[in-house]
Amino acid sequence: MSTEKIPYKIYLSEDELPKQWYNVRADMQKKPAPLLNPATLNPVTPQELGAVFCDELVKQELDETTPYIDIPEEIQSFYKMYRPSPLVRAYCLEKTLGTPAKIYYKFEGNNTSGSHKLNSAIAQAYYAKKQGLKGVTTETGAGQWGTALSMACSYFDLDCKVYMVKCSYEQKPFRREVMRTYGASVTPSPSMTTEVGRKILAEFPDTNGSLGCAISEAVEAATSTEGYRYVLGSVLSQVLLHQTVIGLETKTAMDKYGIKPDIIIGCAGGGSNLGGLIAPFMGEKLRGVADYNIIAVEPASCPSLTRGVYAYDFCDTGKVCPLQKMYTLGSGFMPSANHAGGLRYHGMSAILSELYDQKLMSAVSVEQTAVFEAAQKFARVEGILPAPESSHAIKVAIDEALKCKETGEEKTILFGLTGTGYFDMYAYQAYNDGKMSDYIPTDEELQKSFASLPKTN
Amino acid sequence: MSTEKIPYKIYLSEDELPKQWYNVRADMQKKPAPLLNPATLNPVTPQELGAVFCDELVKQELDETTPYIDIPEEIQSFYKMYRPSPLVRAYCLEKTLGTPAKIYYKFEGNNTSGSHKLNSAIAQAYYAKKQGLKGVTTETGAGQWGTALSMACSYFDLDCKVYMVKCSYEQKPFRREVMRTYGASVTPSPSMTTEVGRKILAEFPDTNGSLGCAISEAVEAATSTEGYRYVLGSVLSQVLLHQTVIGLETKTAMDKYGIKPDIIIGCAGGGSNLGGLIAPFMGEKLRGVADYNIIAVEPASCPSLTRGVYAYDFCDTGKVCPLQKMYTLGSGFMPSANHAGGLRYHGMSAILSELYDQKLMSAVSVEQTAVFEAAQKFARVEGILPAPESSHAIKVAIDEALKCKETGEEKTILFGLTGTGYFDMYAYQAYNDGKMSDYIPTDEELQKSFASLPKTN
Repeated sequence: MSTEKIPYKIYLSEDELPKQWYNVRADMQKKPAPLLNPATLNPVTPQELGAVFCDELVKQELDETTPYIDIPEEIQSFYKMYRPSPLVRAYCLEKTLGTPAKIYYKFEGNNTSGSHKLNSAIAQAYYAKKQGLKGVTTETGAGQWGTALSMACSYFDLDCKVYMVKCSYEQKPFRREVMRTYGASVTPSPSMTTEVGRKILAEFPDTNGSLGCAISEAVEAATSTEGYRYVLGSVLSQVLLHQTVIGLETKTAMDKYGIKPDIIIGCAGGGSNLGGLIAPFMGEKLRGVADYNIIAVEPASCPSLTRGVYAYDFCDTGKVCPLQKMYTLGSGFMPSANHAGGLRYHGMSAILSELYDQKLMSAVSVEQTAVFEAAQKFARVEGILPAPESSHAIKVAIDEALKCKETGEEKTILFGLTGTGYFDMYAYQAYNDGKMSDYIPTDEELQKSFASLPKTN
Repeated sequence: MSTEKIPYKIYLSEDELPKQWYNVRADMQKKPAPLLNPATLNPVTPQELGAVFCDELVKQELDETTPYIDIPEEIQSFYKMYRPSPLVRAYCLEKTLGTPAKIYYKFEGNNTSGSHKLNSAIAQAYYAKKQGLKGVTTETGAGQWGTALSMACSYFDLDCKVYMVKCSYEQKPFRREVMRTYGASVTPSPSMTTEVGRKILAEFPDTNGSLGCAISEAVEAATSTEGYRYVLGSVLSQVLLHQTVIGLETKTAMDKYGIKPDIIIGCAGGGSNLGGLIAPFMGEKLRGVADYNIIAVEPASCPSLTRGVYAYDFCDTGKVCPLQKMYTLGSGFMPSANHAGGLRYHGMSAILSELYDQKLMSAVSVEQTAVFEAAQKFARVEGILPAPESSHAIKVAIDEALKCKETGEEKTILFGLTGTGYFDMYAYQAYNDGKMSDYIPTDEELQKSFASLPKTN
């Protein structure tokens, strides 16, 4: 253990930044189940995926054996514009809590997308450009992913079409303007621009839209337009691969100061941040060289790991994507209207689902009001105004630190602070006004939702 | 000159951070003119100022001779939560412009206040706490300062009352919510809570408010409430003193790599950022050890340096503050309604006004549409979405870099990127929709406004 005083923020130098992503599947003895073609129920082929995704990304999606994959120079250069992100020692939070625990967080919010999403957006845009494509399509809910992708596309001069869930499009006009500032076109979903959109609108003319529906529209737009492919900001194994820069930087910084986390905590929606943060630590766990207590935190209102089933499911409402085996609430699941922020996807990354099923990590769910209470406490002492998503991890980090206060244990806690809440002030306003509410779906509701699972399981 | 490759971002280590602020007045042979008591027209005494400001801050305000003033440990600790700020080499912008110039910017936006304002807010809150006060009052326009102060007060558990210019209060509900999240009370100004507010409302019931009016209300609220003092986010010499952390960090980082800027550019509203950025460079200039081309950039719609007069003027609409000799448009001046963002104060820091009058720096004014054009260009290649205020400096930095392209000169350009534009998306939307307009006040309008100057000049 280094005796050097730990600074408030540890920044790596540019030459310490990761030059390769880490593919955790290479160290998994039992791999995630393969993606299936929904028509044939056979594993999807690279050719089939190539109609939707860029060729190089298809390769990464299906590669289960190569442990390290080179980060192209151009992506490394872009990373240098906003990375390394700081690993912060939460001295002020520790003091406020009066805990003997040592708390660290990896802060990914210091870029205009406001979150870690840019790490994968730039990679996906790069491979699209390299393939000579004209542009990419995607969906966005809360807007972080759409913003990140518009930034990445602007950098590589690629066209970027974003399908934004209709209620977000209307409630978050500022996110929309950030995307437009970066040159993206933003369409509220469902829209009349796609067949699936027209079909959904005909059936539900007053729908507010959903992520699953926006995915279907974006996929259709990509596959029906020459020179376009679809890109996705979470869930996929390629996305988790790119996001390992978070964990790799964290591990390098911790190793430098001789710090070993006992507990690693991350919020989990589709799993991109958590998967990226824990990857190198999970790798050590899989190889049996170290052990860590890894905790996924999800909203009680969208509890895919804690209350979902491990089964093949559709990734989108339109059922055009491959089937993925994952912890899921069923593709028909919609979080209740009071749910603020992201983490509203019905499923979970296949990699994380398999690791969770193997009991290599645990999961807890937390309620919204308690999450905002933790967010406010954190903001007031650590200065950063956290995103609602990130605040799920803060809540559990505080809980664990308070347990240490009771037991006197000096545990080292690491959590992922995925982003900032500047575009979530409606939710903060509801909290400040005492108008925030909680909702936990009933067992009956979940059973009904599970009924939307494909009959192939 | 160091031959080491300059990284994209230079971060100082914690032990390289400034431990003292630099008081540029100590190196000025001709000092700024003293503040005057508007009733007696004599220089204000520390006792008189002490009724409005904290004692230690009064000392700093009046100290013209001490070159270095220790930064208290507690403030240094807080600085470590969000400082050092990065000094960024704008490699991507240089490439896009095709200029041989080397462009650097000091980025102050990576904290929740979204700007450099936190550097002085934490100092002022600290001295208020140390004096045993219950709280502080202030005004805010665009909202950066109010946010910064609410963060600082929350950290030291001080009450914080913010008078927010009424039109901003209504148009920027998100800024308001950030302040509330940090525990501040926010009142739209003019309000019925003060005598001056009631008087203005009686005369102009439909007024949208102004910065000058909000200052008057905040001063009244402080001086009429036991245990409160007033604090201000710009213009004052104490604020420029605290903001020298920007310039000191920049100079240390540049010296480390053997970089010497030829041109230093900053936006100027009240002058806090520009004064802080240039201080150590101006010090060298004043001592005759180095020369720099220093440029203040202001909006063409509020051109205090380029078209104002150098005269004693009121700092606020209610005329309760001391008179200050400065470049001013008259305290009755209001920028036209189309003006977006900050930089709307009628006057300018006394220190900068005197340096400008001595021709130690120059000033240019730029129009709004051109500023947003520069902002968008910058955002698309450098990733950061700049605040409208900061974008004034970007505009002139780009202009200077393009001059170098014509002449082939490899000049080194440094500019201050004061903050982010996340809460300015209405303005970006106007620009994206092609609805942004420019306005330059006519000579007649300015003459009319100069008529509001006190007769004492």
